[in-house]
Amino acid sequence: MDEVIADAFTAQRSWYSETHGYKWNNDVLQGRHFSELADPAHAAEMEALLHKGEFFRDLGVMPGAQNALLSLSGRFEIFITTAAMEYPASCASKFGWLMEYFPFISPLQIVFCGDKSIIAADYLIDDNVRHFSRFKGQGILFSAPHNQHVDWSPRVENWTEAVSLLDGLAVR
Amino acid sequence: MDEVIADAFTAQRSWYSETHGYKWNNDVLQGRHFSELADPAHAAEMEALLHKGEFFRDLGVMPGAQNALLSLSGRFEIFITTAAMEYPASCASKFGWLMEYFPFISPLQIVFCGDKSIIAADYLIDDNVRHFSRFKGQGILFSAPHNQHVDWSPRVENWTEAVSLLDGLAVR
Repeated sequence: MDEVIADAFTAQRSWYSETHGYKWNNDVLQGRHFSELADPAHAAEMEALLHKGEFFRDLGVMPGAQNALLSLSGRFEIFITTAAMEYPASCASKFGWLMEYFPFISPLQIVFCGDKSIIAADYLIDDNVRHFSRFKGQGILFSAPHNQHVDWSPRVENWTEAVSLLDGLAVR
Repeated sequence: MDEVIADAFTAQRSWYSETHGYKWNNDVLQGRHFSELADPAHAAEMEALLHKGEFFRDLGVMPGAQNALLSLSGRFEIFITTAAMEYPASCASKFGWLMEYFPFISPLQIVFCGDKSIIAADYLIDDNVRHFSRFKGQGILFSAPHNQHVDWSPRVENWTEAVSLLDGLAVR
């Protein structure tokens, strides 16, 4: 979800700016997490907010994600998998968010997990390569500021590229 | 979780008895769900209670489940998978329940899903054979009153049998 279909990056950047006045430019955010740039006390505040869960209910949708998934759902069986167990209280918010913005995804195709090695799928689109290490299908890295220096192929910059890539792959 | 490590059966039976006076004997419950036996209005009340979610916080633990999983966790990588998306509001209760009774299971190894065909595992112990139809590993049916007339092998009657079966299987 986060940084792939849900724009947690913009929401966190806004919170840091509005609450503590941070004005990071795009360059300084390349390859870094907010928690590496902020005062540890402020990062702990953000972490507490994430643990409360409601933060995830108000995220924006990543550009093109709705149309892309709607289009792909005609040819692929799509599951939404999210590492919700890092913030267990986020489940209700994440579920409500998905029902609002992705109503064409069945609740039965939502997976709240921790370690994504438990996912059986042909492809996994994620912003975090750690989920690919034990995944048996093909991991597709979705570009996000924090993963700019990560070496992984294939990488897609946005949903237009993701759809093109998937269209070019053999569909079982 | 339900009927395998969490005793939802006993909790539902007690609720029907205490709230509406049903006194079903064990024989009549073989091969049937409560919703088939109760007045539809009462079954709808139960369904509403399940949708509220808190019901899942107070379930008993299935006999032997804690010791069995603790013992198996030394030799197997264990994930708890539960069809929580039928009752999305149950996630918080189910998570709290697991942390209380199975503290040795990492939150990262908990999976709240709907369709269990998304699970990549060697074995799936479940009381519902519908989860086995597209599962690529070996489904192991855990006996419950409602599945008494279901034809599936292997079937285990309890956790003692489940541990014996798994001990006899090749571990990758």
